[in-house]
Amino acid sequence: MPQTNRRPSDFVDGSRLWDRHMALARFGAREDGGVDRPALSGVEADARAQIVAWGRELGLRPFTDAVANLFLRYEGRDPSLAPILVGSHIDSQPTGGKFDGVFGVVAALEAVQAIITQGERPLRSIEVVAWTNEEGSRFAPGMTGSEAFTGTRSAKELFKIQDAKGVTIQEAAEAVLSRDIDIPHRALGFPVAAFLEAHIEQGPVLEKAGIPIGVVSGIQGTRRYRVRVTGEAAHAGTALRAERKDALMAAIRMISAIDRAALEPADTMLTVGLLNVSPNAPSVVPAEAFFSIDLRHPQDEIVDQVDSEIRRITEAEKGPCEVALTQIAHARSLTFATEIRAAITRAAQRIDVPSMDIYSAAGHDARQLHYWCPTGMIFIPCHEGISHSPEEWAEPEHITAGARVLVDTIWDLATGKPPL
Amino acid sequence: MPQTNRRPSDFVDGSRLWDRHMALARFGAREDGGVDRPALSGVEADARAQIVAWGRELGLRPFTDAVANLFLRYEGRDPSLAPILVGSHIDSQPTGGKFDGVFGVVAALEAVQAIITQGERPLRSIEVVAWTNEEGSRFAPGMTGSEAFTGTRSAKELFKIQDAKGVTIQEAAEAVLSRDIDIPHRALGFPVAAFLEAHIEQGPVLEKAGIPIGVVSGIQGTRRYRVRVTGEAAHAGTALRAERKDALMAAIRMISAIDRAALEPADTMLTVGLLNVSPNAPSVVPAEAFFSIDLRHPQDEIVDQVDSEIRRITEAEKGPCEVALTQIAHARSLTFATEIRAAITRAAQRIDVPSMDIYSAAGHDARQLHYWCPTGMIFIPCHEGISHSPEEWAEPEHITAGARVLVDTIWDLATGKPPL
Repeated sequence: MPQTNRRPSDFVDGSRLWDRHMALARFGAREDGGVDRPALSGVEADARAQIVAWGRELGLRPFTDAVANLFLRYEGRDPSLAPILVGSHIDSQPTGGKFDGVFGVVAALEAVQAIITQGERPLRSIEVVAWTNEEGSRFAPGMTGSEAFTGTRSAKELFKIQDAKGVTIQEAAEAVLSRDIDIPHRALGFPVAAFLEAHIEQGPVLEKAGIPIGVVSGIQGTRRYRVRVTGEAAHAGTALRAERKDALMAAIRMISAIDRAALEPADTMLTVGLLNVSPNAPSVVPAEAFFSIDLRHPQDEIVDQVDSEIRRITEAEKGPCEVALTQIAHARSLTFATEIRAAITRAAQRIDVPSMDIYSAAGHDARQLHYWCPTGMIFIPCHEGISHSPEEWAEPEHITAGARVLVDTIWDLATGKPPL
Repeated sequence: MPQTNRRPSDFVDGSRLWDRHMALARFGAREDGGVDRPALSGVEADARAQIVAWGRELGLRPFTDAVANLFLRYEGRDPSLAPILVGSHIDSQPTGGKFDGVFGVVAALEAVQAIITQGERPLRSIEVVAWTNEEGSRFAPGMTGSEAFTGTRSAKELFKIQDAKGVTIQEAAEAVLSRDIDIPHRALGFPVAAFLEAHIEQGPVLEKAGIPIGVVSGIQGTRRYRVRVTGEAAHAGTALRAERKDALMAAIRMISAIDRAALEPADTMLTVGLLNVSPNAPSVVPAEAFFSIDLRHPQDEIVDQVDSEIRRITEAEKGPCEVALTQIAHARSLTFATEIRAAITRAAQRIDVPSMDIYSAAGHDARQLHYWCPTGMIFIPCHEGISHSPEEWAEPEHITAGARVLVDTIWDLATGKPPL
């Protein structure tokens, strides 16, 4: 096969890419500049129709499935080979921004367009995907599309989830699909050669480092807890300290000790972000303290070790109070496939775009796909790490750089010899 | 002068005393059994009229003054001698109880009635007093009547204090006084031979000890602070702990260290009752923590020593955050006059009522009077130390015991040789 000196990334059109972000931001636009585009809503169906239209202009064939995931297929030279799947989601938080999710879908579309423009058809088919209900703000929890696709949870189970008005995912998906009568359905969970997801970082690391590309190493392991310490109210001026059941002082002993237990390694993320005191009056010894613990680390052993310490310390430091520790979330860490991470790094190096390895603190659809096929993620900086906010912002140059690295990675994977 | 074997305490009528508590509780009665009787309000003026009526039935002469303090004078054998002043207040907290303040006024009235019933007129005049706005809940701060009387603050300054609706103490006092057209005014701050205040303990010490009478040694020294720790919000999953400005963790280091610094002596009262975190979200590193410190001890040296530690520790433990420590209150400790405490103890011993020395954790009008004349306080138990609550409760037998000790103390002081 003849090699040209030009790469698909040379055909990425930054202004077209930017314009498509702005065009999608009009579906569910908020007055404050943000986006409110609930999963499986009318405005999301409108945005979906726009993406289908852009795909059809390029000759891509749309497909959908039972949970209304959207696929746009660019046929490779060997249609029998498993495709490269590339995308993210287009639903938003109620006070969302223009980039979270959308960047991954629009960059995937731009990548396919650049490959088409370049003129050489890849060996494997490439499919742009928009997964249903990643955010989980209308229907909780999120990741519905990728969970249903990968069988992490059954569609039957997911269908029952209701929004605040009692509408089920099944009903909402049917409403969206009824508008897609000309889009063929496929079964959930077909073979995929690789999945790539481009996304804004939702953290400050890349911006602070001045690096436009993050090669995502994996997703941190996470445990989240709520701790309720129950003591007894008493008068601040008369109750001897030795006789108090001071819920706040007990909570503070716990948090201090947990803090010390989680100092090493330095990338152990331990956060007490929420703490409520009751009755919360200056002259009353607190009867109750309620606090959150958010624990994350790329290595499960570290997460598990701090978890043991949290369980030991909350009991050891409760003093005369009662304590109830509840773990409300637990996700194992994962490390994305070496060959995908290497392909992304290589793609960035070839076009002289600085990149660095970075862990994702948040979950993404890529978490589910990781257990289905070789998977990787590309991060770009977002301003001050702000996300899930109308303030969310990514620089056009970073969006372009992300799409350029994405397309060269896709090209590398789509022309590689099977199996990947 | 002939001595009888009977004492004035023999003439205390427990059921009349109890009935008067219940009668006053109807002025500003809450549906939950508590009392809401704001200072200088219509319902307080009604309660005041009831007290004047009871006084007049006994032949007591009412007086008032510019801040609407109420006095009921029982003339002694030598009206030129400074009177014994006995009383407390009849305003309540919005969610107040039936006993805080009222007990001191009604017991004083009962004491005078017992002395009258006994038949022998004391050398000195005795005056029952109800001080204006002790609580400070409608007009903050409180102690208006005793501060104006003793000149701790000028009436001119106090007059300007407004309630939540913009009504000044001057306007509210004039409204009350306009209903008292037949009550003569006297100047603020006349000579007083001694002041006695009976009060519920507002703490659990007497009840736990099973002792009905507390001879109040003095009022604890107090310092109150507000501490604002300012850091920077950050993402719980991406911000390295070493790079965070975690306002809550800084606050917790401070509170832990202050806690340890105030463990000795064991009666050092240190309380962090209020702690507010911002933005108070589980996945956001806290940008701000705001907390209260309430410090009390009978010895000023201990209070001052912990104060130095608080100032040192808040700076030493702030880490990368900013801290602003504000002392919002400072009251030196005081020790009531030896002769008054001895008179109370003697009175209790003579009628075989167990008593113990006890420090007051709360401020009272007696704080101001202490600097004006020999002053003392008598505490009785209240259930579980609860006060400022509809749950506030004192046993009838303790109320009777308190009034009996009070009247014998008054008798002792009122018949003693001048100067006291």
